[in-house]
Amino acid sequence: MPPIISIVGKSDSGKTTLLEKLIAEVKQRGYRVGTIKHDTHGFDIDHEGKDSWRHKKAGAATVVISSPTKAAIIKNTDRDTPLAHLAATNFDDVDIIFTEGFKREAKLKVEVFRKEAHHDLLCEDDDDLIALMTNQPFDFKAPTFDINDVNSLADLLEKRFLKVDQTPSVSLILNGTHAPLKPFIQEMFINSITGMVAALKGGKGAQSIQLSLDLPKKHKDEIS
Amino acid sequence: MPPIISIVGKSDSGKTTLLEKLIAEVKQRGYRVGTIKHDTHGFDIDHEGKDSWRHKKAGAATVVISSPTKAAIIKNTDRDTPLAHLAATNFDDVDIIFTEGFKREAKLKVEVFRKEAHHDLLCEDDDDLIALMTNQPFDFKAPTFDINDVNSLADLLEKRFLKVDQTPSVSLILNGTHAPLKPFIQEMFINSITGMVAALKGGKGAQSIQLSLDLPKKHKDEIS
Repeated sequence: MPPIISIVGKSDSGKTTLLEKLIAEVKQRGYRVGTIKHDTHGFDIDHEGKDSWRHKKAGAATVVISSPTKAAIIKNTDRDTPLAHLAATNFDDVDIIFTEGFKREAKLKVEVFRKEAHHDLLCEDDDDLIALMTNQPFDFKAPTFDINDVNSLADLLEKRFLKVDQTPSVSLILNGTHAPLKPFIQEMFINSITGMVAALKGGKGAQSIQLSLDLPKKHKDEIS
Repeated sequence: MPPIISIVGKSDSGKTTLLEKLIAEVKQRGYRVGTIKHDTHGFDIDHEGKDSWRHKKAGAATVVISSPTKAAIIKNTDRDTPLAHLAATNFDDVDIIFTEGFKREAKLKVEVFRKEAHHDLLCEDDDDLIALMTNQPFDFKAPTFDINDVNSLADLLEKRFLKVDQTPSVSLILNGTHAPLKPFIQEMFINSITGMVAALKGGKGAQSIQLSLDLPKKHKDEIS
């Protein structure tokens, strides 16, 4: 799973503006970027009258639209999807994930502070803060950069999270729920599965392996 | 992987209209439905100015928006994603998938024919056709129903694909590409992985298991 960096800050502090510059800078350095936006109030997507919109309106739980340049997936959920699950299932082909929101679930955060909008920081005392972007000096324990200095922020992210030998990682989802795995168990899965896959065509040295198992749902008989 | 049924037909034959009725009918019978729409020309989604739109515009390869009731994923692709890959990666929680388009890749098809729009069928001689929905009588080898009779079509789909003991299935994606597996290999994966997972909390009797492995990308060192 790629590293997940969350851009946090009080409302109107400039999270999206910073993120736009940061995405462009990190992309320009040759990395593939993914983003996750949390939207408390729900959101509109797709356009009224389009076929996919009609599928959804008719009752489809999941709608996918696929074209040669883009694919979109719209899914009903019955609760907020955990950040770790969103990250594990949708970003096999990116190098780094930035999020907006997810303050509580985020492990690695960058706070944005704009003096015109607020007087105090959001994360005054937060050990997970890896940098502060501000237009007002602070005496702060985490590295502090000017709010517009995405170059320095990208340097820090690159050094700490991108230009490193990534360790192998494994994520397991059981019945749609993320199952945490101890390092020893992770190693067991990695060794067993890479061993099995190595014997297959294209399997030797694969950098990403995704396995989905569907097991018999006996209850199907009972619907009638 | 759920069964994939493709609604095919010449343009303006009423594919989306049929699909709307069919989705509603199958949902009403208690099944979860997914759909996949192929769009040759690309498509617009998301709304100009929204945060997720700004992320994408700034260069993010994949953008996810998550709320308590809905999640949306928008991904750049560099070619058409194979139907089998789309189905294997996005629909772990539905019972049946309907597609529009994908005429060539589809294994199980329902053709829609409307005499006001065309004179001939699209799939005159197609063994993969499981039903024909038409407003004009045809002497045809597959079961033929009135274009509005979604009830009979749903009966047929339910009998053939939904009210059956599903056999276990496994899908493997290596470096983003779907790897076909012979039945013997599928069984090997199913037995090994269910065995490993059974020892974990919540792993015994899991109906869906998804494993994602990220293996070290040595080339990260060479970027600098």
